[in-house]
Amino acid sequence: MALDGSRPGSGVVAADHVSLRRNNLSVVLRHVRELGPRSRARIAADTGLNKATVSSLVAELVDRGLLREGNAEPERGVLGRPGQLVELDGRGVCGVGAEINVDYLAVTALDLSGETVTERRVPLDVAHLAPGTTLDQLAELIREAVDAVVARGGQTAGVTLAVPGLVQSSTGSLKLAPNLGWTEVPVVDEMRARLGTPVYPVRVDNEANLAALAAYSEMKTAAESAGDSKVEDIVLLTGAVGVGGGMVAGGHLLRGGHGFSGEVGHMPVAPAGGICGCGRTGCWETVVGLTALLNKATDSDDPVRDPSLDVEQRLAEITRRAEAGGARTLRALADVGTWLGIGGAILVNILNPDVLVLGGYFAVLGPWLKEPLETAIRDRVIAPDGGGCRVVQSELGFAAAVRGGAQISLDQVFLDPTLVGRDAAGVAQ
Amino acid sequence: MALDGSRPGSGVVAADHVSLRRNNLSVVLRHVRELGPRSRARIAADTGLNKATVSSLVAELVDRGLLREGNAEPERGVLGRPGQLVELDGRGVCGVGAEINVDYLAVTALDLSGETVTERRVPLDVAHLAPGTTLDQLAELIREAVDAVVARGGQTAGVTLAVPGLVQSSTGSLKLAPNLGWTEVPVVDEMRARLGTPVYPVRVDNEANLAALAAYSEMKTAAESAGDSKVEDIVLLTGAVGVGGGMVAGGHLLRGGHGFSGEVGHMPVAPAGGICGCGRTGCWETVVGLTALLNKATDSDDPVRDPSLDVEQRLAEITRRAEAGGARTLRALADVGTWLGIGGAILVNILNPDVLVLGGYFAVLGPWLKEPLETAIRDRVIAPDGGGCRVVQSELGFAAAVRGGAQISLDQVFLDPTLVGRDAAGVAQ
Repeated sequence: MALDGSRPGSGVVAADHVSLRRNNLSVVLRHVRELGPRSRARIAADTGLNKATVSSLVAELVDRGLLREGNAEPERGVLGRPGQLVELDGRGVCGVGAEINVDYLAVTALDLSGETVTERRVPLDVAHLAPGTTLDQLAELIREAVDAVVARGGQTAGVTLAVPGLVQSSTGSLKLAPNLGWTEVPVVDEMRARLGTPVYPVRVDNEANLAALAAYSEMKTAAESAGDSKVEDIVLLTGAVGVGGGMVAGGHLLRGGHGFSGEVGHMPVAPAGGICGCGRTGCWETVVGLTALLNKATDSDDPVRDPSLDVEQRLAEITRRAEAGGARTLRALADVGTWLGIGGAILVNILNPDVLVLGGYFAVLGPWLKEPLETAIRDRVIAPDGGGCRVVQSELGFAAAVRGGAQISLDQVFLDPTLVGRDAAGVAQ
Repeated sequence: MALDGSRPGSGVVAADHVSLRRNNLSVVLRHVRELGPRSRARIAADTGLNKATVSSLVAELVDRGLLREGNAEPERGVLGRPGQLVELDGRGVCGVGAEINVDYLAVTALDLSGETVTERRVPLDVAHLAPGTTLDQLAELIREAVDAVVARGGQTAGVTLAVPGLVQSSTGSLKLAPNLGWTEVPVVDEMRARLGTPVYPVRVDNEANLAALAAYSEMKTAAESAGDSKVEDIVLLTGAVGVGGGMVAGGHLLRGGHGFSGEVGHMPVAPAGGICGCGRTGCWETVVGLTALLNKATDSDDPVRDPSLDVEQRLAEITRRAEAGGARTLRALADVGTWLGIGGAILVNILNPDVLVLGGYFAVLGPWLKEPLETAIRDRVIAPDGGGCRVVQSELGFAAAVRGGAQISLDQVFLDPTLVGRDAAGVAQ
């Protein structure tokens, strides 16, 4: 039986039979996800649920296509005859993440076990297009992803849109995205209309939040399989034209009181700096964003600035120049790294993360940015040894937000397995 | 039955009968605390526990002195004969908070219902004393508080020490407190020895964390009784010689990965500023701490700087001068208020709290600091309308950390009522 997390302030929650059953389905499904294939008897012993209940819960989860029968349990000696293992299935259940950013669109579909079913990214000069035009193009990419899910006999559990701005999750509205030039766009309603009001839910979230969730999930899995100490608190920095922050504390995403947390790009760290997309002066992203790097490293007619280039092509060229020892490029990278450390140290002093994750373009150029960043953290963080914070480059790169978006849709299924219909073809609303 | 909070990442917890009983005792006790006196039948209906279980749980909680029989329930018509109400007791169970700060020591004892049993604050020039001498004096104050609890027939559930520095809770050690000049002091062990290795637990925590918990608890209660919208995310600023931050998000204290979060006083916001107690230049507390205010508002031989004055006497004099329209005092306050806003806006951009709470000296001088602070938040926070963040002055002033410390000790009892012995005289270890 799952107990209340029992921290001060936890709600005192009463349950009826339906919510108790739903909770227990979730407990069993998450148990198998986290701990791997195991027998019904083992699940009963581990969770404190009785064996008959576990058998009934497993049967329902198999019915819903979320678990499947696995191999026979290895011989267990004195503990009796071997049982049948059950394992995570969910190949038929997919979450879709779809991102709008300043210079690209991206879509990914993941199945319940975390396998990638399809992914695409296309360069697009979003800041110079009408929101409707961009949403049309993204809808087309989402439809392709949903078709790919259907083609493998699966169902879509939900679509999550990732946007680089302030999101009001409750209404599905993007309040403000300075670097896109978008204000008050009801992105969920607009997308649902373009997708023909689908049966699956459509959500929207801040791209840095979603990237942080994806990075957290990846690091947690990696730490567990390596037997490392727990990673429960991370700060992820998304480096693009703008800079966003996504924060996970104690395993939970920090959204703030109204969902507007993580606006780290606008810390006023460079009073003598340039004008920001937000209209203010000296914001952090004016000294560490991709535009700042390009301005420092290249002339205005440098081909690397061609807007039709994908961001990865652009970064490949910067990398080539840095590896060739280009003095101007290396100076620009060192400068960005130092500024990254000045703002990074503020975040580490405030939040004391286990890990500061470099995402987006910071991850790609990490080999040059990491040293000045780590120096600044050692020098400027008041806790000894940077408060124990490690700096790592995300392995997910620009795919982090879409993966996080897909995961959020799948997380809903882990929390409430009854969202997936008992007939494998349809998702209950 | 209390369900798992069911957020992604929640642990999958199995329970045995002992932990299930302990959890259910906690559910019933917290239920009565949060919702007030009620009958056993009502508790059963509200929590989903069956009536016989509730009767047994209530009997045990009465036995432990945590609940007591109250009045008969008001006539309920068709619902049957009126039952007996049970209500929170706990007059006999007290938590003690004890604070070491730069220029004072403070101790408070609260009973389980939140009533103050005893409180004291004494000025002390801690930064110029050996840690041992300060701990001797604090131990004396704690003994007085524990004696006051015993004198009313009560028992001490625990003592929590509040310190203005980096704390390693697991070992009970103060790593670093720049403004005290303390490094690596095992404060819990030192205090336990001075208290004669008491049966109750002794803990240590950062003073801003404890102040934030106390402020959160106060604001939550106030919002509930006023029917206002929920307050779940707050940032509290403790203004003393140093400046600390305590953060509550989604109802939970943010401690960071290693317990070193909230070091907001060292954000490098004033590159042209003075030398900080931490050895760096331009830290936020060099422009908003009490010393900065005194330096701006007074000459070095001003009697208000006399170290034998209590901080409240000092602030009373500053208040008197401001109310009398003293130009230098008002200029200094406006300057501190503006710098408070510059750093405050960083915190609001990052954390998006519902409320920014001014604690310590900021609360006392709030009438002069609030306007420039609110202006900076409006101007510098990227979310519209400051992200919905309100600025309020704490009502708890310098008592916040000790109250938070007492509450943490009491929270342990709410989470595990079996910590209190069945014989009302002894607390189980």
